[in-house]
Amino acid sequence: MANVSIIGGSGYGGGELLRLLLGHTQVIVQQVTSRSHVGEYVYQVHPNLRKQTQLKFCDPSTLQPVDILFLAQPHGQAQHHIEACTALAPKIIDLAADFRLRDASTYEKWYGQNHAAPEWLRKFVYGLPELHRAELTKADYVSGVGCNATAANLALMPLVKAELLDLSQPILIEIKVGSSESGAEGNPGSHHAERANVIRTFSAFGHRHTAEVVQEMGIKDITLTMTAVDLVRGALATAHAQVKQGIKIKDLWKAYRAAANENPFIRVVREQRGIYRVPEPKILAGTNYADLGFDLDETSGHVVSMCAIDNLMKGAAGSAVQCMNLMMGWEEKTGLEFAGLHPN
Amino acid sequence: MANVSIIGGSGYGGGELLRLLLGHTQVIVQQVTSRSHVGEYVYQVHPNLRKQTQLKFCDPSTLQPVDILFLAQPHGQAQHHIEACTALAPKIIDLAADFRLRDASTYEKWYGQNHAAPEWLRKFVYGLPELHRAELTKADYVSGVGCNATAANLALMPLVKAELLDLSQPILIEIKVGSSESGAEGNPGSHHAERANVIRTFSAFGHRHTAEVVQEMGIKDITLTMTAVDLVRGALATAHAQVKQGIKIKDLWKAYRAAANENPFIRVVREQRGIYRVPEPKILAGTNYADLGFDLDETSGHVVSMCAIDNLMKGAAGSAVQCMNLMMGWEEKTGLEFAGLHPN
Amino acid sequence: MANVSIIGGSGYGGGELLRLLLGHTQVIVQQVTSRSHVGEYVYQVHPNLRKQTQLKFCDPSTLQPVDILFLAQPHGQAQHHIEACTALAPKIIDLAADFRLRDASTYEKWYGQNHAAPEWLRKFVYGLPELHRAELTKADYVSGVGCNATAANLALMPLVKAELLDLSQPILIEIKVGSSESGAEGNPGSHHAERANVIRTFSAFGHRHTAEVVQEMGIKDITLTMTAVDLVRGALATAHAQVKQGIKIKDLWKAYRAAANENPFIRVVREQRGIYRVPEPKILAGTNYADLGFDLDETSGHVVSMCAIDNLMKGAAGSAVQCMNLMMGWEEKTGLEFAGLHPN
Amino acid sequence: MANVSIIGGSGYGGGELLRLLLGHTQVIVQQVTSRSHVGEYVYQVHPNLRKQTQLKFCDPSTLQPVDILFLAQPHGQAQHHIEACTALAPKIIDLAADFRLRDASTYEKWYGQNHAAPEWLRKFVYGLPELHRAELTKADYVSGVGCNATAANLALMPLVKAELLDLSQPILIEIKVGSSESGAEGNPGSHHAERANVIRTFSAFGHRHTAEVVQEMGIKDITLTMTAVDLVRGALATAHAQVKQGIKIKDLWKAYRAAANENPFIRVVREQRGIYRVPEPKILAGTNYADLGFDLDETSGHVVSMCAIDNLMKGAAGSAVQCMNLMMGWEEKTGLEFAGLHPN
Repeated sequence: MANVSIIGGSGYGGGELLRLLLGHTQVIVQQVTSRSHVGEYVYQVHPNLRKQTQLKFCDPSTLQPVDILFLAQPHGQAQHHIEACTALAPKIIDLAADFRLRDASTYEKWYGQNHAAPEWLRKFVYGLPELHRAELTKADYVSGVGCNATAANLALMPLVKAELLDLSQPILIEIKVGSSESGAEGNPGSHHAERANVIRTFSAFGHRHTAEVVQEMGIKDITLTMTAVDLVRGALATAHAQVKQGIKIKDLWKAYRAAANENPFIRVVREQRGIYRVPEPKILAGTNYADLGFDLDETSGHVVSMCAIDNLMKGAAGSAVQCMNLMMGWEEKTGLEFAGLHPN
Repeated sequence: MANVSIIGGSGYGGGELLRLLLGHTQVIVQQVTSRSHVGEYVYQVHPNLRKQTQLKFCDPSTLQPVDILFLAQPHGQAQHHIEACTALAPKIIDLAADFRLRDASTYEKWYGQNHAAPEWLRKFVYGLPELHRAELTKADYVSGVGCNATAANLALMPLVKAELLDLSQPILIEIKVGSSESGAEGNPGSHHAERANVIRTFSAFGHRHTAEVVQEMGIKDITLTMTAVDLVRGALATAHAQVKQGIKIKDLWKAYRAAANENPFIRVVREQRGIYRVPEPKILAGTNYADLGFDLDETSGHVVSMCAIDNLMKGAAGSAVQCMNLMMGWEEKTGLEFAGLHPN
Repeated sequence: MANVSIIGGSGYGGGELLRLLLGHTQVIVQQVTSRSHVGEYVYQVHPNLRKQTQLKFCDPSTLQPVDILFLAQPHGQAQHHIEACTALAPKIIDLAADFRLRDASTYEKWYGQNHAAPEWLRKFVYGLPELHRAELTKADYVSGVGCNATAANLALMPLVKAELLDLSQPILIEIKVGSSESGAEGNPGSHHAERANVIRTFSAFGHRHTAEVVQEMGIKDITLTMTAVDLVRGALATAHAQVKQGIKIKDLWKAYRAAANENPFIRVVREQRGIYRVPEPKILAGTNYADLGFDLDETSGHVVSMCAIDNLMKGAAGSAVQCMNLMMGWEEKTGLEFAGLHPN
Repeated sequence: MANVSIIGGSGYGGGELLRLLLGHTQVIVQQVTSRSHVGEYVYQVHPNLRKQTQLKFCDPSTLQPVDILFLAQPHGQAQHHIEACTALAPKIIDLAADFRLRDASTYEKWYGQNHAAPEWLRKFVYGLPELHRAELTKADYVSGVGCNATAANLALMPLVKAELLDLSQPILIEIKVGSSESGAEGNPGSHHAERANVIRTFSAFGHRHTAEVVQEMGIKDITLTMTAVDLVRGALATAHAQVKQGIKIKDLWKAYRAAANENPFIRVVREQRGIYRVPEPKILAGTNYADLGFDLDETSGHVVSMCAIDNLMKGAAGSAVQCMNLMMGWEEKTGLEFAGLHPN
């Protein structure tokens, strides 16, 4: 049994992480911090944890050494105290954006400020097991993933890995997302009366997660367009690209099946009948699955690749736990067995 | 044509009022105030008014005399400057709770503070035309109505008016409401990720609107229990009461039909087939209708009376405009012709 | 390890049951029947089970003997072949309404037809562990529970058990429910464009589940009033009753805390701050919890007791698995560990 | 006053049309047909029309001559009896797809069957006033518009009209739609428990409305990708295209402002602050507006153009009434004055 603690446990990502760790057979949660909720039971903030734990939020200054330390703070904080964190634990997994990009200048370009600990960027492995499984088994420091970046990266992965894409053509990824993406802190636009019933293309260009897709796919010309819809959990990436001449649907089947065979949380959804013929976040709430689907216009070579995830799971806490399993040599799916609900 | 202005036009009630007045054939909107939005186009706050008006929010200190002044501020403000308001206009309609109760001690009991202008309470008429039509035609000062109080009052009205109720028995009114009820200002509980998918009985007893129902129905033993559900606009009151011995369904039909005949915005919904057999706020968004329905257990005498409304219309701005029409001698339905949408 | 099969696995209850049994450490699912889906993978109907199982639906005629047989057919079928079922398995759990009522004439009154196997009614134990735990440990035949009956029964249970109620007064239970309650078969009123955004009091009196509440609580004067709201999973019962003279809030705390202490899936939710102060089905999707809350007007004695559940879990498949655990002498919570999601 | 009748009034398009015509100052609705609802009050199917009209559905065989005949039947019917219709009225507006395409072979390609009245295709004007206003003022026969085609056409219109696009590059239009698009007839996938909470890319390529966009824009390489989201009314088209070299944001402003100036129902939404910065169908329910917005990456020339509409209004019945106004020489906005609701 390994001891784990969480810095920043009152947000949605931290809450999901805590839920997963409390149900994980290999770890014991020692401490969870939250400056604004010190002394409160964690179930007062995360009501689903009532009768699951009697843990209370503690002040970060009281943290004791553990085997694995999770950082689940808002973006931009971890980089300022990463040294102190490494003194507390030999293994660190950060869910925020602080250590996702390998290059300090890229970070500055997308986040509009200098990175406070650029020397640490190279020490972190990007925490998406489907892309970095081997490295993760040897990693001490692992970054989290952007939820939208994950949907985009996994939509493209089978095509990129099998070298099916014509990379001279731009890639456009339309991502539709639920309201939990924007975090637990509300704003005028997240007020229910304003946020319900929306189809709101809030970012046509320039979403920060683009940097992670460009980095991980090794492709420059990628656009992410973001649209908020009426849903709490879930993201769907619909990626549009061009395949190389002569590529057929059977080539895509092969590439996608390979992805599903090699990765326990990848499934291919491409049915000819029934209600659920394509990937849908609706049935993924609480699961770590990434469901992939595709369609190809064989004449034009236009391929549409879809990836559905739960943004708080595969797009955040779920992938973090999956990384922990790999880092610790545990079975990759441990603690991530929930199958999801139908209907939901 | 009458000149009208609105004090406090940036909230949901004020916005709806402005929409109605802009479409009203008998009035010209002169000024709309909002301290926090001075100088902004009203359509920047109420995006549905784009291309409907070029009005900008102005500071209250710039208000000019008009024929009719609407007050649409948060509760508790109008009572502090009601004298100044009367200097600006001979006719005043207040949408807030300040002048709904006729008795200062009742106000203090329910609102927990002394009333700042108790002598004005008697000068206002309670602005529900279905209860006070005759008085309203002669009124200069009219209070608005509580949205939940309106659903409750209209659910009870046919039964009370026809003297069908056994008043020795308590009356229980379960009200289910959408998120626009809590106003345009958000709070942690109104954050979409927290507010979506709720069935939240946030008030078992003691909702302030109870005072308006007790006052208007003249019945003491009334309880309002409030449950928030996932909807933006709409409220449904399901009232449970006891009828006098021997009362039959045909007696209720008579009472409800009379209500519908006497009131242009009351409809009775009690169908044996089709999808819409009972009153539903779903189809009332934007309309001034109050749809009534009922069921009676003839053996036990337990009657269930339902009233569905759009809380921002019949429960706020719609009734206010209806009052204005009566006060000014205009056709009662003027400006309130919208039929509502199906489906919606 | 015990072998189990399910008759009727294509509905929502059957699907949830299958999900739970696939994740249960003590059982192996042998067969799942569905006449209309013979030969299809179960994940084609329940897409959440993709990569969880390669089971296909089979014809009921192919059923082999097992240790435990679950019946998850529509109401009214099991009573016609219960003898044949007992030949297949020594232990049977029926999720439908066929064997919930102990009295054939009560069945006829509420279901409008004679019972086809009245002699079997006495052989079944009502499958709500919170009411019949001891009997269930010795039972061979267990009926399921009505979802609304369960919300109602558990809302009343602490009050009834502690003998706090004035039973001379009627009990009124307002239940708000999501769309999964009406099952997997659509109808005109369940079409999304008609069913979304509803607050629809579809049954003022006479809901069939009333019979289960009357039977289990041993109280005659109980009314269930049903309102559909916009949600997929979840039910909230808000029960209104009268306590005996002199009963105080502290007496209720004692009764509710006892219920939570004695039952692993009962929690009391009654907070003074935070967003989640009362029981809410929102956070219970996929869990077997029943969250209870209450409020009391000490002056009048009017008590409001709330129970929130996931209608497909605690109200159906979850309670069925909990019953199986008790019948088989397994740990009561086995296979029901999912904590639920926040936010959701 | 003109006399009008509707063939096929029980669907969503027909219902909206009826609502608009009942509120129109220049017409009197004579008859509304529905084979399956003969003899029923129209408000039994369209509950929003209760107390608006005492009309009953009649059999098509009883139709009397009128000035204007609307056809609101399911696709594929009008072409079989168009001659008979012209004998009933000198002016015909068809809301279905039967006469939208000018070319019979194009119809066959997209609809998979021969057209039953190909000689009539050239006699109809495509009923989108923003594209064919002058022709419509002289037209006798007008086709309706596809809702998704309308969102797509209006998103592209300002760019095409001002000749800003590099037409050598493909155009990709991602359209997100609510559930009312699929009509009043349910199917397994429209069942609320399955349809709620979806982000379902149900058509990657090949949606039939593509043909209308290709025809009306005169551009060949256009793809429509369709995604269903949780909403009843509304569609948002997010169009991705390439502008000619050197085109700047100010050029787009000019093109979009011109569109808004020339068309009473076009608005440009591109705000730097507030909640509503981009076009959103949320606030358009019940209105005939098409809200347009855009963003341009001046470096790459990638333009994103958005169009939000109510699919049943601007995308169906609203445009049909607007066409009628033009055909009859009435003020273009007559009967279409509803401003929409905020919040909604």
